[in-house]
Amino acid sequence: MQRTEFSQTLQSNMALPANETSMAERSQWVLNAPAPPSTWHNLMASVRNTISSYQKMCSYIRGQPGPKVVLSFLRSIFPILHWGRNYSPTKFRNDLLAGLTIASLCIPQSIGYATLAKLDPEYGLYTSVVPPLIYALMGTSREIAIGPVAVVSLLLSSMIQKLIDPAIDPNGYRKLVFTTTFFAGIFQAAFGLFRLGFLVDFLSHAAIVGFMGGAAIIIGLQQLKGLFGINHFTNKTDIISVMKSVWESVDHPWNPRNFVLGCSFFIFILFTRFLGKRNKKLFWLPAISPLVSVMLSTLIVFLTRADKSGVNIVRHIKGGLNPSSINQIDLNSPHIGALAKIGLVVAAVALTESVAVGRSFASMKGYHLDGNKEMVSLGFMNIIGCFTSCYVATGSFSRTVVNFTAGCETLASNIVMAIVVLISLQCLTKLLYFTPTAILASIILSALPGLIDINEAYKIWKVDKLDFLACVGAFFGVLFASVELGLLVAVGISFTKIIWISIGAGTETLGRLPGTDVFCDAQQYPMAVKIPGVAIIRVKSSLLCFSNANSVRERILKWISREEAKGNIEDNTGSIIQLVILDTSNLVSIDTSGIASLEELHKSLVSSGKHLAIANPRWQVIYKLKATNFVTRIGGRVFLTIGEAIDCKLDF
Amino acid sequence: MQRTEFSQTLQSNMALPANETSMAERSQWVLNAPAPPSTWHNLMASVRNTISSYQKMCSYIRGQPGPKVVLSFLRSIFPILHWGRNYSPTKFRNDLLAGLTIASLCIPQSIGYATLAKLDPEYGLYTSVVPPLIYALMGTSREIAIGPVAVVSLLLSSMIQKLIDPAIDPNGYRKLVFTTTFFAGIFQAAFGLFRLGFLVDFLSHAAIVGFMGGAAIIIGLQQLKGLFGINHFTNKTDIISVMKSVWESVDHPWNPRNFVLGCSFFIFILFTRFLGKRNKKLFWLPAISPLVSVMLSTLIVFLTRADKSGVNIVRHIKGGLNPSSINQIDLNSPHIGALAKIGLVVAAVALTESVAVGRSFASMKGYHLDGNKEMVSLGFMNIIGCFTSCYVATGSFSRTVVNFTAGCETLASNIVMAIVVLISLQCLTKLLYFTPTAILASIILSALPGLIDINEAYKIWKVDKLDFLACVGAFFGVLFASVELGLLVAVGISFTKIIWISIGAGTETLGRLPGTDVFCDAQQYPMAVKIPGVAIIRVKSSLLCFSNANSVRERILKWISREEAKGNIEDNTGSIIQLVILDTSNLVSIDTSGIASLEELHKSLVSSGKHLAIANPRWQVIYKLKATNFVTRIGGRVFLTIGEAIDCKLDF
Repeated sequence: MQRTEFSQTLQSNMALPANETSMAERSQWVLNAPAPPSTWHNLMASVRNTISSYQKMCSYIRGQPGPKVVLSFLRSIFPILHWGRNYSPTKFRNDLLAGLTIASLCIPQSIGYATLAKLDPEYGLYTSVVPPLIYALMGTSREIAIGPVAVVSLLLSSMIQKLIDPAIDPNGYRKLVFTTTFFAGIFQAAFGLFRLGFLVDFLSHAAIVGFMGGAAIIIGLQQLKGLFGINHFTNKTDIISVMKSVWESVDHPWNPRNFVLGCSFFIFILFTRFLGKRNKKLFWLPAISPLVSVMLSTLIVFLTRADKSGVNIVRHIKGGLNPSSINQIDLNSPHIGALAKIGLVVAAVALTESVAVGRSFASMKGYHLDGNKEMVSLGFMNIIGCFTSCYVATGSFSRTVVNFTAGCETLASNIVMAIVVLISLQCLTKLLYFTPTAILASIILSALPGLIDINEAYKIWKVDKLDFLACVGAFFGVLFASVELGLLVAVGISFTKIIWISIGAGTETLGRLPGTDVFCDAQQYPMAVKIPGVAIIRVKSSLLCFSNANSVRERILKWISREEAKGNIEDNTGSIIQLVILDTSNLVSIDTSGIASLEELHKSLVSSGKHLAIANPRWQVIYKLKATNFVTRIGGRVFLTIGEAIDCKLDF
Repeated sequence: MQRTEFSQTLQSNMALPANETSMAERSQWVLNAPAPPSTWHNLMASVRNTISSYQKMCSYIRGQPGPKVVLSFLRSIFPILHWGRNYSPTKFRNDLLAGLTIASLCIPQSIGYATLAKLDPEYGLYTSVVPPLIYALMGTSREIAIGPVAVVSLLLSSMIQKLIDPAIDPNGYRKLVFTTTFFAGIFQAAFGLFRLGFLVDFLSHAAIVGFMGGAAIIIGLQQLKGLFGINHFTNKTDIISVMKSVWESVDHPWNPRNFVLGCSFFIFILFTRFLGKRNKKLFWLPAISPLVSVMLSTLIVFLTRADKSGVNIVRHIKGGLNPSSINQIDLNSPHIGALAKIGLVVAAVALTESVAVGRSFASMKGYHLDGNKEMVSLGFMNIIGCFTSCYVATGSFSRTVVNFTAGCETLASNIVMAIVVLISLQCLTKLLYFTPTAILASIILSALPGLIDINEAYKIWKVDKLDFLACVGAFFGVLFASVELGLLVAVGISFTKIIWISIGAGTETLGRLPGTDVFCDAQQYPMAVKIPGVAIIRVKSSLLCFSNANSVRERILKWISREEAKGNIEDNTGSIIQLVILDTSNLVSIDTSGIASLEELHKSLVSSGKHLAIANPRWQVIYKLKATNFVTRIGGRVFLTIGEAIDCKLDF
């Protein structure tokens, strides 16, 4: 029966229009392909690509007549000049509403995150003024709400406090924070300018999910300090040492009022969020609830003077405009190397969060977000920020969602928010004197659930177990070791996986799908028919290189001998394999070790009276096989398709 | 014209026997493929594979009746019991000849390499007695000549002398050497037993070529000490510090006699080699010339008492059998961690050299060498060796070549060699008292050219520039930094290359080869014809993952817009692309980020009125696309071949 199948293929091959051109001619096509671009050429190409993208911009600008040149140049840098022109009152109404909403969420969060970053509260507010304004001028997204975020604040404090303890030398610590912000900004801008956007992609999606989840829990644990009103708390972030210091604090006299106050308002915030979810009209309720609870709790404390009876309060917040902090950026610091490293890590994390948020909303509204341009604007935002007493700011996930649901139209909502925060800095800081820290803790806590995405983790588990491992690795790395280690683990696992897949010595045997002359993996397509006397083998990985060449060779030889043994048991027709066809259609590259192993394979096949044929080689591969005379060594048996390779069986 | 081409394809598709089964049915084949094996399953499979290979052995043994069991079990461990049975006098004559030849080469080399390893000369000879005997019992190769080798000796001394200076505490240093040997043996045996042979393959061919070349030069430089009779020589191995200490030594009074003696015999050895090359019958001449020159020079020095006038000589060599060194293996040493690391490196290098040599000769004689079994025997050889005052031994390149050309039949030649060395240890050590060290230097020097393979380096340059970079990196790393750094550089570059290739965001556009319905890279096959209104794009890498997914998406979108722009300029027929076919035939794996980017791609295509179709997805890929409902989202447009995907264009 198989025999007939086989002859069928041949007929079908004859029947094909394929024979308008002779087979010999076609295998000449394969052999005489033009030389592929060299490595050097590729490298140059990518560089040229980067440069040309700027040239295009320049030429576009030069294209404009006289005065327009400047304008269009500015437009390319400040998109606001573009969308600002057709800005309408109706748009402004929406932006105003959205701006006020996020401002009310932003003020308490900023104060909270500042404490998380081990800075005085006002620095959180500063960071919500300048960066949003800069981003509004330069940014390309329409929804992102800029400001301090939880994860970055945690990263900063957890890494920098190893260099200087903020409790001992707050000024020195602050200097380091601003210097780190400077570095982060430089790195972000550089990534964008040199079009290195892809570097951010090195944090795999799975890794980010795990990392965010772990970070959220860590941040929550940090809030126990405020919630319990614990005075001496650990500087470490891992769950064990935090839990220990909480446990020890039980022996010290602690004040339940903090806890009661915090919890009650935490429940209030969750309740408002529940209402907001139930009734879309009330979206503003969860947004303003933090501010409301701050006001209420402050009022309560003020009236009852509860601070006298051990309720921890914010006390003095320095009001007024952002002071300059140029003199605080210390590039001769002994820690400069460490700060640069921290800056890089923070820059990467901040970019990842912001770009991810921006992209998701952009694709929702159906416009494209230029990753590189985003990075440049975020970078400049942080560089200017660090001169005006701001620490690293980026696109906040929670506030961006609120901004979107509040119906923002443009980045004007960020401007509104910045102005509101500025005003409150001018006038309202005194009112925040009696705000209990427990409330700030509960506000931060209420923002965390958004960072933990169990559904996504489950989806990852479903799709790819190794990705899930990276996710879990990041999660537990953050939880039990440290934030940066968590990141390291995640990146490590992701890359190990890449190497594992791309150099795994996987081979698969192909069969012909009945009624077609398509050859597919016999396991994937159980209906695929084997061609008697022919072994069709494909290397799974895209490289045949030093690390897998030998094992591939051994696998192939083993498989053939096994097949022949089987064949002898089942039937004696065609159990002896005469022709081994290596389908190299998905080999992108082969190196010297790979070619050497192919030669050894050929030798050992010949010694057992078999022939080796290559089917459908890719550009680089055929080029190298020719360069090393491997083609001539196998008698030029290189074919365009597997079908034609099978036909050559007739020659022996 | 293109139109007709297009309709042609359709006709050809109709004409195909392909239509024995309907297209719909076939795309069902694609969609309803059985679930692919899970990661876990694959992992287990490889473990099972390892175990089963042992089970097979056991079952085979159990198969034998009564007493045979033991015998066949022993045979599986000691191949000598197998080939020993049909061992003939003629074979013995050849082995005896070969054995004597390599012994005459081995004795001076061993002494030289021992000095290179900063050990007393006798330890080199010890290492040429026990390991060859063990290997003769267990080894599967027939040509390999076991003993100390230059590169390993250099590696040992260069790394261990950082822990203890042999000049200050020779006993402590020796202890460390034996302990390292023990670790090396353990690692080698473990690699073999757990079938981790592929780990050795992580040293790419290119890296080895570069490393060997660099090492050869370093070793040569070390010989300047002996050749010039320099007394205080640097412990560093890099070319700069060696050259410096040579330069400084010029000021010190030094004795030209050493140099003259060494050079004259160096020339003598080279001359004999030249003769050997010219006349194959004289192959034994270059082999024994080292021993001859040792005898002559010793005699000269003895007669002229040149040692009195400043010629450095070997002086006392401790004779007698290998003393036990069990008590010298110190596993509580403070350096234990470092020693384990050194052991690993040495084990890897030793295995690479030996297995490479063995394989090349095996394939020459047309028998297969089991890498894992080789590792086990080399491992046990070194473990037993380190208990009998031997340092790390492995297959020597130079002596193996001699052994082969001398016409060895079996490993018996190693036994002969070992016995000869043993006898000379017993009786002849006293005669070596007056051997000038310059001769040893010149003997080592004469062995080095074999390690520098310029032709191979050139071949690598021709085939792959990046491989060449790894080669050069290893070479200069060894030359200017340190031996282990050279290795590190080489491995690093090799892996960077793998990652670069396998996650590079390369895409290529396919066209139909005229007269066939085969679709190939339009750049590789300039005659390929584009299908109007259809863009056929293939991802080059075998992964679509977090690190390249985004850039791939952007490339595709850019390419399409460019094409459409071009089309509008050239002609208005079919310049609007209606269908984008993604040929996923060489995507082995896709992760969550990859799927997300595909979804974004689909969205943006739909928004511009285009359709996305997937052609020929692999097992894992289609499984994951199904699992995430991507298939349904693109309206089930998944096809077996590109041709069929094009046909679906008719539906719109």
